[in-house]
Amino acid sequence: MKTYRKELWFKTETRRAFINITPQIEECLRESGIKEGLLLCNAMHITSSVFINDDEPGLHRDFECFLEKLAPEKPYDQYDHNGFEDNADAHLKRTIMGREVVVAITDGKLDFGPWEQVFYGEFDGKRRKRVLVKIIGE
Amino acid sequence: MKTYRKELWFKTETRRAFINITPQIEECLRESGIKEGLLLCNAMHITSSVFINDDEPGLHRDFECFLEKLAPEKPYDQYDHNGFEDNADAHLKRTIMGREVVVAITDGKLDFGPWEQVFYGEFDGKRRKRVLVKIIGE
Amino acid sequence: MKTYRKELWFKTETRRAFINITPQIEECLRESGIKEGLLLCNAMHITSSVFINDDEPGLHRDFECFLEKLAPEKPYDQYDHNGFEDNADAHLKRTIMGREVVVAITDGKLDFGPWEQVFYGEFDGKRRKRVLVKIIGE
Repeated sequence: MKTYRKELWFKTETRRAFINITPQIEECLRESGIKEGLLLCNAMHITSSVFINDDEPGLHRDFECFLEKLAPEKPYDQYDHNGFEDNADAHLKRTIMGREVVVAITDGKLDFGPWEQVFYGEFDGKRRKRVLVKIIGE
Repeated sequence: MKTYRKELWFKTETRRAFINITPQIEECLRESGIKEGLLLCNAMHITSSVFINDDEPGLHRDFECFLEKLAPEKPYDQYDHNGFEDNADAHLKRTIMGREVVVAITDGKLDFGPWEQVFYGEFDGKRRKRVLVKIIGE
Repeated sequence: MKTYRKELWFKTETRRAFINITPQIEECLRESGIKEGLLLCNAMHITSSVFINDDEPGLHRDFECFLEKLAPEKPYDQYDHNGFEDNADAHLKRTIMGREVVVAITDGKLDFGPWEQVFYGEFDGKRRKRVLVKIIGE
């Protein structure tokens, strides 16, 4: 069994952002030399997300509205978590979007359907944060 | 390490549907001959879902109401994604229900609690769509 | 390839509760002797959850409010599932929080960011229920 590990770093300009990280993950897979197995990609922070969906800007605006409706950022004092922090909404938004994805590796490729793309979802940005890529297989 | 891969195809009669796919997944596991490991089952499309819950029709109607409340299908023009498409709500619904499940394989069986069943959740159906089953182990 | 399996049992005093199970999972990992691989931890019941977030009581109260807003426990008769049962809301709440987490194992440790902690989320408690830990690797 071979294993591979890499951290990807991100610092967004805005509090919230969606970044297509599929090319970086494909590069990790090439580096690993693994042809068959499973790839785990997860946010290492609890106010951000890794998820799979469509690379379409209109849909990303719909995600923003959807998440703001379910877990609005403001007013900050609606959340008990926001004593010394202001990011309770980011913890909730990340819960909806998910922490991680597990992707099949087949013939040395991400075994994806036609439109699957991997995104980093940032909900409390403007600082350096990490995503973990771990691959096991052979 | 052994690996196994199979695609399951579905075409639902309705836009939304829940299909119990546990028997097909058990058949995949038998075919694989794998006794210990992990099984990944994921939707290959970004408007459908694979999830684990109860095989109870009342609960499935509750899921339908719950999802329609959080991400209503209509009016279509409430979503930026719906320029040439009408399925933005399906992308959001699938996000709530999840893309994938990872199941432990122990002694050649799906290592499930008493009521766990795997479902395909379709949110934009009436066309052929795929689910991926990937198993690694030995 | 080595594999490891253990069931963790819980019985909460209240219908809903969040329990930090990171220490038990670290103990499983030590017992397994696995240094590199993947760890799956999932609820074996469909009205409870395993998820990763912050060990902060204010945030847990925010989760409680958030979940009660999206899928309120009462009135019980708002749900079709609640013919002979009263736990439809627990099925929905667990869907939002997720069934499982997959964690990378690196150098014999849970490969976590600075604040990641694993929780058992109970939404229909006061009875004995199980969580599965499965580790594969070497």
